[in-house]
Amino acid sequence: MMLPFAASLEFVHTYSLIHDDLPAMDDDDYRRGRLTNHKVYGDGMAILAGDALLTMAFELCCHHADHNGVTANQQLHIVRELSYGSGHQGMVGGQVMDIQAENREVELAHLQKIHSHKTGQLIRASVRIGGIIGGASSIQLESLTGYAEDIGLAFQIADDVLNMVGTREELGKDAGTDEQRGKKTYPSFFGIDGARQLGKECVERAVKRLESFDHQADPLRHIATYIIERRS
Amino acid sequence: MMLPFAASLEFVHTYSLIHDDLPAMDDDDYRRGRLTNHKVYGDGMAILAGDALLTMAFELCCHHADHNGVTANQQLHIVRELSYGSGHQGMVGGQVMDIQAENREVELAHLQKIHSHKTGQLIRASVRIGGIIGGASSIQLESLTGYAEDIGLAFQIADDVLNMVGTREELGKDAGTDEQRGKKTYPSFFGIDGARQLGKECVERAVKRLESFDHQADPLRHIATYIIERRS
Repeated sequence: MMLPFAASLEFVHTYSLIHDDLPAMDDDDYRRGRLTNHKVYGDGMAILAGDALLTMAFELCCHHADHNGVTANQQLHIVRELSYGSGHQGMVGGQVMDIQAENREVELAHLQKIHSHKTGQLIRASVRIGGIIGGASSIQLESLTGYAEDIGLAFQIADDVLNMVGTREELGKDAGTDEQRGKKTYPSFFGIDGARQLGKECVERAVKRLESFDHQADPLRHIATYIIERRS
Repeated sequence: MMLPFAASLEFVHTYSLIHDDLPAMDDDDYRRGRLTNHKVYGDGMAILAGDALLTMAFELCCHHADHNGVTANQQLHIVRELSYGSGHQGMVGGQVMDIQAENREVELAHLQKIHSHKTGQLIRASVRIGGIIGGASSIQLESLTGYAEDIGLAFQIADDVLNMVGTREELGKDAGTDEQRGKKTYPSFFGIDGARQLGKECVERAVKRLESFDHQADPLRHIATYIIERRS
């Protein structure tokens, strides 16, 4: 039942990585241990690959009525969540703020705002879409949204720490790039141990948000813990 | 009633122009008499502007049930048409073929295939979406689809002719660029008069497809004629 909607989110995620890696954006040569899309196929093809994936993501959400128990209205709701999370109010908006912040002094509050858009909103959309398909009540959706926001922040903190302490072999991409670029990160504000502690607190808060859910929410609890324990 | 859906199509169109103008694609400096997006804001911002517009296009199609008489199922149908016309099976697919055909000998049949995807599929989606909202029967939708395919071809032929005979003032962008780039066009196959004649025949065929429609289809008849008479 979840499959086409999970694929949609994966497509949006992949499109965003392909476009982010472009020379006009982050200019990254490696991703997941392999050359990035534009290094292999050229910039034009990479832009088009991203465009095609983004478009397909929406197509995959829109079936005929009552697709495997997901009603037409739920499908429309899913498209709205997906576009909100990935578009100018979400991921793309965060990317814009990120470009605008280049070579400027960034305060912590602004850094958090950038991240909550750049990575947080798509995680939020993913969790909420799962809730919508599962028929969550509005109170449950509220809890899930809080959970998603907390793990989104934890994810970004962990990412910053990994960029600092990970190796290229572990990460599948170049390590230490944030520091080279003079990019403000959580470790640059709190030190590595401080950032790790902050990440841990986010995960604890996230898990607490799921208190009213039974064992069916265990995968979400595992994901929260995995986020700060992962090595890549 | 039509407004959000018309805006969706305009957003997709604008996104495609912004991305097409990028240095990694057609590398155009002018559009509609003004500097292109990337010339003003940089390549990164232009990529993001396109991404945001494309995403918003889908958001605009997906309201709550029965939005101004457009049912949830019709809205899902519209998203499918829009993504089909703009994605890898449509516009983006045509763009990919166009890049692959660069600096190669292209035969007429292949040129038509490229154009039917690059520009034709989005015109097809636009006309079909109008039909869906208007509650067209499947036979009527079939006629409208044929009409759209004919005007799509006429549009491309007229565009090729204008690129050759128009001035930069008229076009709002550089003229004669196809010839400079050694690009195969309809005039390069048929000469200017031959291409014009071909365009005229397409429009006649398109108007004939609307025979079973009354005066309500007059705007479509006017659009067909306008396509080959326009000067920019």
